[in-house]
Amino acid sequence: MDELPGSLGTSASLSLRLGQTIFSSASLLFMSLGVEFYSYTAFCYLVTVMGLVIPWSFTLALVDGYSVLVKCPVRQPGILLIIVIGDWVLSILSLAAACATASVINLLLDVDDSYCPPKFCTRYQLSAAMAFLSWFLSASSSLFNLWLLPSL
Amino acid sequence: MDELPGSLGTSASLSLRLGQTIFSSASLLFMSLGVEFYSYTAFCYLVTVMGLVIPWSFTLALVDGYSVLVKCPVRQPGILLIIVIGDWVLSILSLAAACATASVINLLLDVDDSYCPPKFCTRYQLSAAMAFLSWFLSASSSLFNLWLLPSL
Repeated sequence: MDELPGSLGTSASLSLRLGQTIFSSASLLFMSLGVEFYSYTAFCYLVTVMGLVIPWSFTLALVDGYSVLVKCPVRQPGILLIIVIGDWVLSILSLAAACATASVINLLLDVDDSYCPPKFCTRYQLSAAMAFLSWFLSASSSLFNLWLLPSL
Repeated sequence: MDELPGSLGTSASLSLRLGQTIFSSASLLFMSLGVEFYSYTAFCYLVTVMGLVIPWSFTLALVDGYSVLVKCPVRQPGILLIIVIGDWVLSILSLAAACATASVINLLLDVDDSYCPPKFCTRYQLSAAMAFLSWFLSASSSLFNLWLLPSL
């Protein structure tokens, strides 16, 4: 079977998973450390979603790392289907959270400075940007694995 | 070749396309008729995206209708790839617009009644709901066609 770069068990997939873990952790940290994120629904939603993405990506990074080391990628259609669906759902949730956060920040900047002091707003914006990057990597993983699925 | 329901040129695909056209038109109308939508970036973005989705879905609905009538579905991989990518991009944009609109409405309801009179807010909410439905149908179309692609 030809090896598709980015599908489960390759080193490209390992980099994608590590990227997801790093960006989603950064998004969570920028949003939650020392900032009163729970005052807006969209920010709470972002924190919840990132809290789901981090363990998922980290676990799959471990699986990929193990597969790369023993040179024996997982090729059961059932497992791959679960991973594709999981990635799919999480990437949709990440995109939704990132967009919701970005539009709320935009609105807060418009309405009044008192809602969003410059120091906090920059951190919110960084958090939204990290969430977008995490979404992009999740969607790529999902697409690569989906592409592999019919050939199994 | 077995016919996958929902892929290009089937009657299921025709219904999906008609649903997309109807929901995106409804979203555009609820948002734009008699409401000052241009005061918020997220609402302008929703109107722009829906203005892209309507002609795309309507054209593909015509193609599907023609294919169903002459019983000769399009099966060129190149055309199918363009349609999958177009659906994909538009579904991501629709989801982003719907989430941004929904979070802005939510924030406006929280902050102050004067920003969002009840009559207008209901229309904004309906518009966001229609955009979510339109996203769901676009994503389904994209997935069905993507599933067909490797077998061509």
